[in-house]
Amino acid sequence: MGNNSKLNEVTLSTESIFKGRVISLQIDTVQLPDGNQATREIIRHPGAVAVLAIHGDKMLVVDQYRQAMGRCELEIPAGKLESGEDPLEAAKRELKEETGYSCNNIKLLHSFYTSPGFADEFIHLYFTDDLESGEMALDEDEFLEMSEITLEEAQGYIQEGRICDAKTVMAVYAWQLYSLTGKLGQ
Amino acid sequence: MGNNSKLNEVTLSTESIFKGRVISLQIDTVQLPDGNQATREIIRHPGAVAVLAIHGDKMLVVDQYRQAMGRCELEIPAGKLESGEDPLEAAKRELKEETGYSCNNIKLLHSFYTSPGFADEFIHLYFTDDLESGEMALDEDEFLEMSEITLEEAQGYIQEGRICDAKTVMAVYAWQLYSLTGKLGQ
Repeated sequence: MGNNSKLNEVTLSTESIFKGRVISLQIDTVQLPDGNQATREIIRHPGAVAVLAIHGDKMLVVDQYRQAMGRCELEIPAGKLESGEDPLEAAKRELKEETGYSCNNIKLLHSFYTSPGFADEFIHLYFTDDLESGEMALDEDEFLEMSEITLEEAQGYIQEGRICDAKTVMAVYAWQLYSLTGKLGQ
Repeated sequence: MGNNSKLNEVTLSTESIFKGRVISLQIDTVQLPDGNQATREIIRHPGAVAVLAIHGDKMLVVDQYRQAMGRCELEIPAGKLESGEDPLEAAKRELKEETGYSCNNIKLLHSFYTSPGFADEFIHLYFTDDLESGEMALDEDEFLEMSEITLEEAQGYIQEGRICDAKTVMAVYAWQLYSLTGKLGQ
């Protein structure tokens, strides 16, 4: 399972449709396992990092406007990888930029694709509870507000839909399991 | 938090770049909170459903080739919403199509955006352990293999990267918590 060659598709051609600042779009023509052809609309993304950062009994979240959703939501600190950047260094950088906190000890929980049906965005999710406060340093076009919430608040926000993105819901699950079992990740 | 109007961006214009079979791409020009302008690359997606389906002490997964990743991976049963389709009915339909199992009782755990930075894909994650076996009915261009795995196997597959998409990792967390606490969702 997971390397099942008889399910494989073979790329016959790739047409570049758009190259943007963040994402690019291509249409791949593939040969299906039965020999027929199909097209696949694929988004290329540089990848990202996210941090489950625990300060005492609270989790750091940032309130941020998301144009795709047309509203603000609460997310864990996160951001795109810069070209050639090591994910662990990116996680420390984004945490510092978005919350002001530095960390020394930080651990990869796991990495995951957000939307495997149409995008290659791959997020590395880190954990730290070794935080040292400092100054935020946001990007020029970045506007957000940091706050710290308890597990109970986080669960309530998921129910209300104020926390409603995959990486943050996943981080709350990971935190809840950690607080129950002392075990991190899977 | 989550409705923080001073972080809001205002859409000034929208340029349609591409309309595909599954996704469309637009570039929005927005006014930032400080009055400056920026562009946002936005993918529109019809939304999707996914099902954490537990059969005895095992979870149903499908092995599927993903062109965006260039390989197969194990995911929980899932699929796009059809136009106007009720998410609960879509969840039952996808479960039946991809695994052959029907279910009567099915419950929404929560819904989430997969990639709020650039896409509006919204997944409704359901739970069922009320399964009745039957025949699979795959779409014409859909090739996948169903199997049933234990929680321990699922956790191992996450570590190995054979389970590596957001909805499936999240579902394994939800299942693990359910098996520890008897409580579903958040």
